[in-house]
Amino acid sequence: MHAAATHADSRNPDRRDSVDLNSDLGEGFGQWTLGDDDALLDVVTSANVACGFHAGDAAIMRRVCDRAARTEVAIGAQVGYRDLPGFGRRFIDVEPAALTQDVIYQVGALEAFARVAGSRVRYVKPHGALYNAIVAHEEQAAAVVRAVVDYDRSLPVLGLPGSAWLRLAGEAGLTTVAEAFADRAYTPDGTLVSRRLPGAVLHDPAEIARRCVAMAAGEPISDVDGGPLVLAPDSICVHGDTPGAVAIARGVREALTAAGVTLRAFAG
Amino acid sequence: MHAAATHADSRNPDRRDSVDLNSDLGEGFGQWTLGDDDALLDVVTSANVACGFHAGDAAIMRRVCDRAARTEVAIGAQVGYRDLPGFGRRFIDVEPAALTQDVIYQVGALEAFARVAGSRVRYVKPHGALYNAIVAHEEQAAAVVRAVVDYDRSLPVLGLPGSAWLRLAGEAGLTTVAEAFADRAYTPDGTLVSRRLPGAVLHDPAEIARRCVAMAAGEPISDVDGGPLVLAPDSICVHGDTPGAVAIARGVREALTAAGVTLRAFAG
Amino acid sequence: MHAAATHADSRNPDRRDSVDLNSDLGEGFGQWTLGDDDALLDVVTSANVACGFHAGDAAIMRRVCDRAARTEVAIGAQVGYRDLPGFGRRFIDVEPAALTQDVIYQVGALEAFARVAGSRVRYVKPHGALYNAIVAHEEQAAAVVRAVVDYDRSLPVLGLPGSAWLRLAGEAGLTTVAEAFADRAYTPDGTLVSRRLPGAVLHDPAEIARRCVAMAAGEPISDVDGGPLVLAPDSICVHGDTPGAVAIARGVREALTAAGVTLRAFAG
Amino acid sequence: MHAAATHADSRNPDRRDSVDLNSDLGEGFGQWTLGDDDALLDVVTSANVACGFHAGDAAIMRRVCDRAARTEVAIGAQVGYRDLPGFGRRFIDVEPAALTQDVIYQVGALEAFARVAGSRVRYVKPHGALYNAIVAHEEQAAAVVRAVVDYDRSLPVLGLPGSAWLRLAGEAGLTTVAEAFADRAYTPDGTLVSRRLPGAVLHDPAEIARRCVAMAAGEPISDVDGGPLVLAPDSICVHGDTPGAVAIARGVREALTAAGVTLRAFAG
Repeated sequence: MHAAATHADSRNPDRRDSVDLNSDLGEGFGQWTLGDDDALLDVVTSANVACGFHAGDAAIMRRVCDRAARTEVAIGAQVGYRDLPGFGRRFIDVEPAALTQDVIYQVGALEAFARVAGSRVRYVKPHGALYNAIVAHEEQAAAVVRAVVDYDRSLPVLGLPGSAWLRLAGEAGLTTVAEAFADRAYTPDGTLVSRRLPGAVLHDPAEIARRCVAMAAGEPISDVDGGPLVLAPDSICVHGDTPGAVAIARGVREALTAAGVTLRAFAG
Repeated sequence: MHAAATHADSRNPDRRDSVDLNSDLGEGFGQWTLGDDDALLDVVTSANVACGFHAGDAAIMRRVCDRAARTEVAIGAQVGYRDLPGFGRRFIDVEPAALTQDVIYQVGALEAFARVAGSRVRYVKPHGALYNAIVAHEEQAAAVVRAVVDYDRSLPVLGLPGSAWLRLAGEAGLTTVAEAFADRAYTPDGTLVSRRLPGAVLHDPAEIARRCVAMAAGEPISDVDGGPLVLAPDSICVHGDTPGAVAIARGVREALTAAGVTLRAFAG
Repeated sequence: MHAAATHADSRNPDRRDSVDLNSDLGEGFGQWTLGDDDALLDVVTSANVACGFHAGDAAIMRRVCDRAARTEVAIGAQVGYRDLPGFGRRFIDVEPAALTQDVIYQVGALEAFARVAGSRVRYVKPHGALYNAIVAHEEQAAAVVRAVVDYDRSLPVLGLPGSAWLRLAGEAGLTTVAEAFADRAYTPDGTLVSRRLPGAVLHDPAEIARRCVAMAAGEPISDVDGGPLVLAPDSICVHGDTPGAVAIARGVREALTAAGVTLRAFAG
Repeated sequence: MHAAATHADSRNPDRRDSVDLNSDLGEGFGQWTLGDDDALLDVVTSANVACGFHAGDAAIMRRVCDRAARTEVAIGAQVGYRDLPGFGRRFIDVEPAALTQDVIYQVGALEAFARVAGSRVRYVKPHGALYNAIVAHEEQAAAVVRAVVDYDRSLPVLGLPGSAWLRLAGEAGLTTVAEAFADRAYTPDGTLVSRRLPGAVLHDPAEIARRCVAMAAGEPISDVDGGPLVLAPDSICVHGDTPGAVAIARGVREALTAAGVTLRAFAG
């Protein structure tokens, strides 16, 4: 779906008339909360809902799915390693066959809540260390692709442009959706600046909003060296795990709307 | 479905032309195994597959569902408390609303594997302490009923005759299926003899097989006091967690077949 | 230790020259936080540190123990049911023998961090549903007592006056420490007003502080019906799981100090 | 301690008058069992007891420690990644600081049971993927060393000769104990043949026993290419997770005893 012709106009093939905003939701667990799910559901068009392996539990999934269905936000499966203590942020060397089943399990559990809410799971987006691993880890990337193929090959998959994950998914016939990050700096070749480097994460709400408008318009943003970089994502990822983050996400939405960009889920 | 007229013939309204054999499967976890799933899948007509909360994991669920689908054994959701260290055998005072979501989560996860295998979840049977609790605990019984109603009200539920669980399920319009236990002693009023009492569990394979044939024929078995007791279950539960148990289950199947009783899943 | 003569003066046998302030700490898990541990460690004299079964993890325990040792706050083991999803707030019908080992495990894990920090575990206080259960559940109360007896019979135990827990602990020769709650309403006979009833939890910081000063002075507070009630606890429990709660706890400390009551851990 | 002079005689510096036999124990969980702990405790001199992160639970730890103390088997902490579903056999990229605390937690929990049984934790041996990782992963190896240094620098550590783990432990002043595997093939340079290669695991009880006697005598065994290899371990690791394995372990013990080698724990 990346750079798909249907999204472009004649003047700029990278311009989108509409773009998706996605964010991680339902990342609490039991007594513990993380982020403001309700606030974010008024901002985004796609909700990556944690499925209980690295965050989330049944009660949270039920509540988020119910509200997402009411507000017509697309429900996606935020699948991850089985690692609650590590919040899915630590690479685990799971055998590929086991990883495939772990992903199917998570998608199935979420599907139940989505269906009960009158909706269904619309896409799959890996989380945390799994997201990062399958940028390059071919076996694990293939294992997650296999899970989606086994479960429902009509499900789009969301991820990083250039990743093994999206490449293998595409080769398997899945619909791939490329995302950009609203608040992350990019290298000149379009990869993310490592979080360990200064300047990796942007904090100025106005700058972040401007960059998102540029991305949606198919216009260049500044890479970390100040050069022009065209990203043209199908979806923009915003965060909501702090009060400031929700305000930034809201600013992105308002700026896109003001610029005439329709906010629309990529999967419907 | 208990004592349903369609199962009876003109001579004995409790006689069944066919009966279901159900057993707990997929009760290992990670490196640990419990019971012989493959052997049991050649014996039973309905497999109560553990869903990961008290036993079972994604890899085991995948394997059991794949094989159950191939051998045309009906897949049921063996739902339980979230208690791996206790194997679901300890009552947990979960709030009813949370219990409802926990059950939906488990059924959904299993559904994914059943669908991938070309089948689907055919029924729900609570496990262990949850099974026992909802014999009398009205709130928890209602919570599990609510889960099935929310998820799919066409799913039959399997349980103990006389339980709040089956009563409330019936009142909610669900199809209820009554089971008897092949190897358990019964009191004169048809309840189970407590496991804490001597003689609660039968061990003689021949006696167990004879009792099952009697149950299916609508004929009385001996209760713990020696009096006659007609059970007439829709399904008979056999165990498979020891090598001896598998042999007993096999003996039950052979005796029923020899007696002209068709073994058939109650849900298809 | 309740109403111990060494704490009384000649005018009022219930007056304490010193009192302990205890609070629950270290109740986050992995990525999730709960309460402001650092702020509370400047307020309380005894820290009930969660040990990983219902909350807390190794990294949190290390950090809390290190800081508690530096600030000379007594480290106590906040032991609970093994129930992270339920935060230990759901009764679990664990067999007593298993419960004994679960408690020993938790105390031992915390002891390691206390020792590494140059301190040691000074007392045991059950948490949540376990705290409530052993007010009346004799078998579970005896199981927790047994854990302390097996582990180290010199460890004091903290709990509710009148509970089976403190009674059995006393009978077993353990030092028992009675606590009162700073922000809870009491019935005329000195038991807690159920949280389900209106007025069970007090919210006015000034009133809470006044009541704590009265408790320490051995003077009556008002019970829920307005009558006088003398509690005379050895320790007062304050909460810290919200910003407002920390402010209330700080107010209690300041009021006690202003009234000339020394704040001192009951266990040293 | 490797090749320590006190273990050698004048004829062969690699000859040991005594050797330790160690094995993994307590690796069940809840309802699930693995191996025959009681049988192994009659064979080995050192028990690597699982501490609940990848296997084991409080009840199992209590039982194994009680029996180990009675039979005078040294209790060691079998520490691993926090990964019950993976049995600790999957590398997890835990941050070193978190790994240090995870190890301290496990050792502390086991210490409680060892003390209650009248003994104490005598050594630390990492398990599974952690064992393998810290052969070469310097940061994780240092993190585990740090845990032992923080907890009790008098505790010996058991591991693979040539590993970063033993090297860093030695540099930190810890006592290091080198082990060999009774049933594994070795390369000419003394490293283990990968389990993925044929012949990596030996199955012939007589051959395994002969090799162990040779190891203890400081005499060469055959490497995988047939050449002579002197291992001279301080401890020999035997397995017990299958009935056959227990018989092999028993055979090793009998052969060593028959050869005049005293079986003695390295840590007392």
